Amino acid sequence: MMLWNVLCVSFLCGFLQTLAKESKGHISVVLVGATGDLAKKYLWQGFFHLYANQVSSGHSFSFYGAALAGPEDGTPSMFQTLKGLTCLSGVTPDRCALLKDQFLKLSQYRQLKSAENYTVLDNEIEKLLKDEGLQEAGRLFYLSVPPFAYADIAKNINSTCRPMAGAWLRVVFEKPFGHDYEAAKKLAKELGMYFQEEEMYRVDHYLGKQAVAHILPFRHDNREFLDPIWNQHHVERVEIVLKETVSAKGRTSFYEKYGVIRDMMQNHLTEILLFVGMETPLTINSSKEVLQNKLRVFESLRKLDKESAVIGQYQNYSAEVTDELQETKGFKTLTPTFAGVLVHIDNLQWDGVPFILTSGKVLDERAGYVRILFKNGAFCLQSENGRKSENSQCKLKQIIFYVGHGDLKFPAILVSKNLFKPLMPALSWKEVTEYPDISLFGQPLSDYYIYSPVIETEAYTLLISHIFQAKHESFITTENLLASWSFWTPLLNSLANEYPRLYPGGAENKNLLDFVVTGNQVGFTLEAPVKLFYNEPLNSAAENAKVIQSVFRKSKLVSAWAKELIERLASQLYEAAKEAVKRSGKFHLALSGGSSPVILFHRLAFHYYRFPWKQTHFWMVDERCVPFTDQESNFKSLHDNLLQNLKVPYFNIHPMPVYLNQRLCVEEDSGPEFYSSEISRLVNNASFDFVLLGTGEDGHTASLFRSSEATFEGDKFVTLTESPIKPHQRMSFSLSLINKAKEVAVLIMGYRKHNIVNLISKVAHEPEKWPITGVQPNNGRLVWYIDYEALLG
Amino acid sequence: MMLWNVLCVSFLCGFLQTLAKESKGHISVVLVGATGDLAKKYLWQGFFHLYANQVSSGHSFSFYGAALAGPEDGTPSMFQTLKGLTCLSGVTPDRCALLKDQFLKLSQYRQLKSAENYTVLDNEIEKLLKDEGLQEAGRLFYLSVPPFAYADIAKNINSTCRPMAGAWLRVVFEKPFGHDYEAAKKLAKELGMYFQEEEMYRVDHYLGKQAVAHILPFRHDNREFLDPIWNQHHVERVEIVLKETVSAKGRTSFYEKYGVIRDMMQNHLTEILLFVGMETPLTINSSKEVLQNKLRVFESLRKLDKESAVIGQYQNYSAEVTDELQETKGFKTLTPTFAGVLVHIDNLQWDGVPFILTSGKVLDERAGYVRILFKNGAFCLQSENGRKSENSQCKLKQIIFYVGHGDLKFPAILVSKNLFKPLMPALSWKEVTEYPDISLFGQPLSDYYIYSPVIETEAYTLLISHIFQAKHESFITTENLLASWSFWTPLLNSLANEYPRLYPGGAENKNLLDFVVTGNQVGFTLEAPVKLFYNEPLNSAAENAKVIQSVFRKSKLVSAWAKELIERLASQLYEAAKEAVKRSGKFHLALSGGSSPVILFHRLAFHYYRFPWKQTHFWMVDERCVPFTDQESNFKSLHDNLLQNLKVPYFNIHPMPVYLNQRLCVEEDSGPEFYSSEISRLVNNASFDFVLLGTGEDGHTASLFRSSEATFEGDKFVTLTESPIKPHQRMSFSLSLINKAKEVAVLIMGYRKHNIVNLISKVAHEPEKWPITGVQPNNGRLVWYIDYEALLG
Repeated sequence: MMLWNVLCVSFLCGFLQTLAKESKGHISVVLVGATGDLAKKYLWQGFFHLYANQVSSGHSFSFYGAALAGPEDGTPSMFQTLKGLTCLSGVTPDRCALLKDQFLKLSQYRQLKSAENYTVLDNEIEKLLKDEGLQEAGRLFYLSVPPFAYADIAKNINSTCRPMAGAWLRVVFEKPFGHDYEAAKKLAKELGMYFQEEEMYRVDHYLGKQAVAHILPFRHDNREFLDPIWNQHHVERVEIVLKETVSAKGRTSFYEKYGVIRDMMQNHLTEILLFVGMETPLTINSSKEVLQNKLRVFESLRKLDKESAVIGQYQNYSAEVTDELQETKGFKTLTPTFAGVLVHIDNLQWDGVPFILTSGKVLDERAGYVRILFKNGAFCLQSENGRKSENSQCKLKQIIFYVGHGDLKFPAILVSKNLFKPLMPALSWKEVTEYPDISLFGQPLSDYYIYSPVIETEAYTLLISHIFQAKHESFITTENLLASWSFWTPLLNSLANEYPRLYPGGAENKNLLDFVVTGNQVGFTLEAPVKLFYNEPLNSAAENAKVIQSVFRKSKLVSAWAKELIERLASQLYEAAKEAVKRSGKFHLALSGGSSPVILFHRLAFHYYRFPWKQTHFWMVDERCVPFTDQESNFKSLHDNLLQNLKVPYFNIHPMPVYLNQRLCVEEDSGPEFYSSEISRLVNNASFDFVLLGTGEDGHTASLFRSSEATFEGDKFVTLTESPIKPHQRMSFSLSLINKAKEVAVLIMGYRKHNIVNLISKVAHEPEKWPITGVQPNNGRLVWYIDYEALLG
Repeated sequence: MMLWNVLCVSFLCGFLQTLAKESKGHISVVLVGATGDLAKKYLWQGFFHLYANQVSSGHSFSFYGAALAGPEDGTPSMFQTLKGLTCLSGVTPDRCALLKDQFLKLSQYRQLKSAENYTVLDNEIEKLLKDEGLQEAGRLFYLSVPPFAYADIAKNINSTCRPMAGAWLRVVFEKPFGHDYEAAKKLAKELGMYFQEEEMYRVDHYLGKQAVAHILPFRHDNREFLDPIWNQHHVERVEIVLKETVSAKGRTSFYEKYGVIRDMMQNHLTEILLFVGMETPLTINSSKEVLQNKLRVFESLRKLDKESAVIGQYQNYSAEVTDELQETKGFKTLTPTFAGVLVHIDNLQWDGVPFILTSGKVLDERAGYVRILFKNGAFCLQSENGRKSENSQCKLKQIIFYVGHGDLKFPAILVSKNLFKPLMPALSWKEVTEYPDISLFGQPLSDYYIYSPVIETEAYTLLISHIFQAKHESFITTENLLASWSFWTPLLNSLANEYPRLYPGGAENKNLLDFVVTGNQVGFTLEAPVKLFYNEPLNSAAENAKVIQSVFRKSKLVSAWAKELIERLASQLYEAAKEAVKRSGKFHLALSGGSSPVILFHRLAFHYYRFPWKQTHFWMVDERCVPFTDQESNFKSLHDNLLQNLKVPYFNIHPMPVYLNQRLCVEEDSGPEFYSSEISRLVNNASFDFVLLGTGEDGHTASLFRSSEATFEGDKFVTLTESPIKPHQRMSFSLSLINKAKEVAVLIMGYRKHNIVNLISKVAHEPEKWPITGVQPNNGRLVWYIDYEALLG
C-alpha cells in the first residue's frame, strides 16, 4: 500500500477514517521557529495536511507554535500564517473549512526562550492530557531554528519536555548539520547527550521531493527489469544535477562559510547518490534495511582528491560578499558557487561507472534530475534511415528522475521506450501522454514513458507525514551524516586554496563550465580563458609544473611539487618496465611501504594502461612482521592500492614470507632465506630492474635502521631487522641486494623530511648511522625524487 | 614519403622517372588465369598501371598472360582485354597511347597446361634475357586460378621456372586459402614445399581498398592524438561492417561450402580488425614489425563460442541452392548468409571493448566501413538548446574508415570535429568540404572532418604495386592465415548445426537482424518471428532448456543440456555463496581441475557480477605436481579462466603447495600437511561451503584413483596420490575432507562419461574401485549435475 505512505488521496480517506475510530492517543506537535520563513511557507502547511489526513485515524492532536518572541507578537504573526492554509486538491470546500477551523482551534502560540518556558509547556501538555482523560501517544518537536540554538533547546526538551512513559519523542532538525567532519561529529555528540538516535529526525528536504522519494520504490517495483541492468555492465554513467539560476545575494554571510559542496553536495546530491547506488532493499518498508544499505555505499566510495572536482564561481560573487560582509574593496574569495565532482563506487556492482555530481548558482536554468544513462550494446543493421522507430534499440537508453522545474516544469520519471514500460503505482503516479514538443537529454519526449505524481506535493508535507510514520529512512541518521562528512571533508580541504574558474552566469556561460571525465579525474573541456580570472599568484599553474633537475649525493636529482614529482617517477618506472620487458620479457620491481608510494600506485593504476603489468613481478623491499591482511602490512597497502586495480597474474606477486608455520618472523622458519632463494631463482643475478625506496626522518631506508651491526652490507640478500618504532620486527632487503639493482629511485616527500634531506646532502657513506647513505648501486642508476617541501623546507 | 608507397601521382611521376635511369634489371610477369574474370576486370589494369609507373624506373618488363587454353583461343581473348586498358587520371592522352602501345608489345599469351609448357616458358625468358643482354631482377607469377590448381602450378614453377641466382621470385595467390584450420594448414604445407615464405603473396583485396590501406598510416601520422585515446579507456566499441545487396545466386556451388564467415570474416574483416587492434608499429614501413604486431593480436583474441555470433540466411537462398545444385525440392541448408560476431581482444589496451564484425548478403545497402566510436565522458552544463555547436564535447565522437559505396558513395576517412583535425598526406588525400546534406552514423556530415583519396584507385592496382615493392604487410602470411583459421574454426564448428534466422532481404529486414552485445555474448534484439523459419526439430529452443530433476545414487540429480546445466550449477553456487557470506562473512569454495569447470568459470566471471568474490576463498580440490605456470596445472586453469577476470584479494587465493623448496611434491616437504593446516586455520571445522567435483571415465574423483589402499577415507585431509595417467604425481583432498563439506556438486558432461555414469548409478559404496562412489557428505548436501550426453549416452 505505497499510497498511504505518500499521502491519503481524496475519496479513499473517508473510508480509512471510518475504519479507525478507536483512540490511539494524543500527539503534541511543537513547532519551534513557528514564525520563521520555512514555517510560514511550508511547515504549517505540512502539519495541516498531516492533521487533515490523520484526524479520523484515532489520534488526537494539539499544535504549539513557539519562538523567542512573547505571545503579543508571536500569536498574531503565527495565526496570520494559519489563516492562509489550504487543503490538498480533492478535499471539498466545506470539509476544508471544517478541518481548518478545527486545526486553528487546536493551535496555540507559546514563547520558548527560558528553561521555565519549557517547564510551563510541559505542565500544560500534562494538564491537557489529564483534563481530557487522554492517553499520550507522543510529542513531536520540529526545530526550525539555526543550528547554534540546537544545544540549548535540546537540553530543555530532554530535561523537562519528555513525554510520559510509553509515548514517543521525535525531534526534528533542519540543516546545516555541521561544516565539516569534526564539527558535525561535535554537534552529533552534543545532541546524542540528550536524545536517542531513534528520537532524532534530520531533514534533508530533497528526500521529500516526489521524484527523489520514488527512486527506491521505483527500483523495487521494477526489479524484474532493473536487476539485470542496474550495474556496471549496463550503466554508462549517472548524472546527479541540481542547477540554480539564483545567486547567493542576500545570504552570502551563510554561503561564504559553506559554498556549493557543503550547501548542496554533501547532503542532497549525496543522498540521491545513495538511493541510486545502494542495493535495493528486499523489504522496501524496512527502515533498518534501507539505512544499512545506504551506509554500505559509503564504505565503497573511492576517496576524492583535488582531481575529482572542477569548481567555479560566478563573477559577481566576490562583489556581493564584499558588499554584504563589509570587506575592503577588491576583496576576493575562493568559495565555489559551482562544482562538478566525479564519484566512483568501488564495488562489483558499480566498478568503473562514473557518478557525476553537479550543482551551481547563477546557471542558465533551474533544474534538478538524476539521469541514469545505459550503455547501448545494440547494433542496428539498417542504414541510417531504415532504423527509425520510437523503441529502436539503437536510440539512447535512459531513466531520469526529474525533480522539477527546467524544460519539463513538473516532477516526473522518464524511461526510454526501448528499455521497458515501468510498473508505477497507479494511485499516486499517472502516465503523461500529452507533452510539449521538446527534446530532453537528447531525445524527443515521445521516446519516453513519462510519469508524474497524481498530486504534486511539497517536500515538507511528505516529510512531515514520514516523521509521523517514523519512516527513518527518509531522514539522515547520525552514522549517515558522519559518513557523508567523512567522505567530503578531504575534498573540501584539498580545494580550500584552489582558484575556482570565474563564470559570467546564465546562458553566457556557454561551454565554459563543461567538463570531461577521464579515468579517475575531471577537468574543464575548455582551457581557462585568459584574463577572465584575477591575477593568480606565481605559485600555481605553470609554476606548479616546474621541475628542477640537478645532482644530489653525486646522483641525479629530480625535484618538483608533489604531483608533478610523482608523475615523473611514474614515467621513469614505465620506461624502465618497457625496457626490461623488451630485454628479458619480465620486469622485476621491488617496492617499499609508506604513504608516498600510494600516490604513485594510484597514478600508475589509473593512468598507465599500457604498463606491461602482466610481465611485471612485484617484490617487497621490506615488510613489517604482521599478517598480510593487517592494515600495517606493506603488502596490504600495495595490494589494495595497486594490485587490486590491475590484472596481475597471481604468479608474479611475491609478498615477503613474514608469516610461516603460523607464526611471524621467527628465525628458525628461515623467511629471509626463503625469499632470497625465490629471488635467486627468478631474478637474473638478483639484479632487480627497479627498486623503489624511501627514507625516514631518522635516515632509515627499506627496514634498515641505525645499528651497530654492519650486516646490511654483508652477503645476505634479505634479513630480519629491528625497528625503533612499532611494529618492531621487520624483514628487509639488505643494502647489498639493493645495490645490485639496475635502477634505484628514492622518493622523499613532505616538510617533515626536510631535515634529513639537508643532513644526507652533506654526509658521506655512513650506513651504520644513516642507512640511506649506503644506497649506491654498483652498476645501476640512482635517481633521487625529492619534492619541494622536503628539499626546500 | 608516404605517397610513393601508395601510388605515383601524375605530375611527380615524370620527375621520379628522370631520377632513376640506370638499369635495375628485367622483370617477367606471368599472369596465370589471364583470361579469367578477375584478370579482365582488375589484374591487367593493375599491371598496366604498374608498368606506366615503373617504365622509367630502370626496370624492363615482359608480361606473359597464361591459361589452359591454346594460343588460338587465349591470345585474342587476352588482347581484347588489353585493348581496353585505361590510364590513371593525370596522364595525358598522348602519353597514355604511347604507354599502352609499349605495354601491348611487351605482352604475350602462353598456354600453361603441362610441365613442358613451363619449361618452354622458362627457356623463352632465359633466351630473352640473353638476347637482350639483360640482368634478371625477378619473376612475378600471379595465380588467378581456383585453389585446387595451386599445387600443380606451384610444383611447375618451382621445378622449372625459378629465376636466375640473385633475382627474386614472387608468387601471388588469390583466396580462398582453405576451408578451415586443417585444410588451410594442409594447403600451406603443400605450398611450403615449393616456396619460401617470402616468395608468397596471398592477396586479400580489402587490404588494397584505400580506406583500409590507410588505417595504419593514419594511426601512425596521428599518434599524437590517438595514442592517449586508442584504448579501452576511451573506445566504446569498434564496428567492422561489410554489407552487400547482392545474393549468392549464380555462385551457390562455391557459397554453399563457405558461407559468410569463411567468405568475408575469416579474411577481410579479420584483417581490418588487426589493423585497428594492433599496436602501431614504430616504423610504419617495416613489414616485419607490422606483421609481428598483427600476429600478436591473435594471441590476445578471446575464444569464440556459439554465443559470440548471430547468424541469418536470406529467404530465397535455399531455393537458389536447390535450383543450382539440383537438390531435391524442399531442400534446406544451414549455410549462413549473414553473421554478426562479437570479438574481444583480451589485453590491457582493449580489455572490454567490443569489436563487432558484421557482414551479409541481400541487405538494404552496399556499404563497408570501420567505425571507432569513442566513449564520451563530457558533461555539458547548459540545457539542451544551449550546447549546440559543431565541436561540442557532448556530441558523438567517432572515427570512420569508409571503404566506399553506401550513403557516402566514395572512400573516405571521417573524424568527428570534437576529436581532432587529423594529419593527412596532402598529396594522396584531400579534405572534402562539399558534401550531401545527409547524416552518417548519427551525425550530419558537417560534424566531421572528411578526407577522400585524391585519385580513387582500384584495390588490385594498389596491391600489384605493393607486390612490386615487396610490401609484405599488405598480404597474408602463412602464420597470419593459420592464426586466423585457428581463431575462426571453433566458431564455425559450433555453428555447423545451428539454424540461421531467415530474413526477407533488403529494407524488408527492418529490425529483424539487429543484435545486441551483452557482456560476452550477442543475441538478436527481436525474438524470432513465428512461422518465419521452417519447422525446427524438437531438439532445440524450448526443448534445449528442459531440465530434469531426479534422484541419482540417493542424492539430487539435475540434468539438462550442457549450457543450461552449467547455468543451474552457477546459480546454485551463487546462492551458496550469498548464504555463506551472510552466515560467516566468507565463502570457502574448493574447485577441481578439468575442462567442464572452465565453462562454469566463464559463466560466473561474465554473468554473476553480484557474486561476493571479495569474500570468496578459493581452494583446490586437487592439483597436478607441475609448476603453477604450467598449462597442466589446475590452478593455472582456474587462474586464467576465472581469477584473472575478477578482483579477488590475493589473500583469498589458496593454490595447493605442490612446489616447495624448489621441487615438486616431495614427501619430506610436507605439502599436504601444510595445506591441511591452512585449511584448519581458515575453514571452520574444515567444512567447506562448497566443493565442486568431477569424475573421470575410470570413476576417479579429485585426484583419488582406484587403489588398493583405503587411505582416502582416513583422517588425512590432504594427500599425495598417483595417477595412472600423466602427470602421475598429484595432491588431492581426501574423501574424509570432501565429505565434511556443506555442499558438494559433481559435474559430469559429455558422451564419453556415459558408461561411468551408467556404472556408478548401479554400484554401492566402493571407493577403492570407483572413488567417486565414496562421495557422501556426512551432514552436507550432494547434488549431481549430469548433462544429457553423459546421462543418456
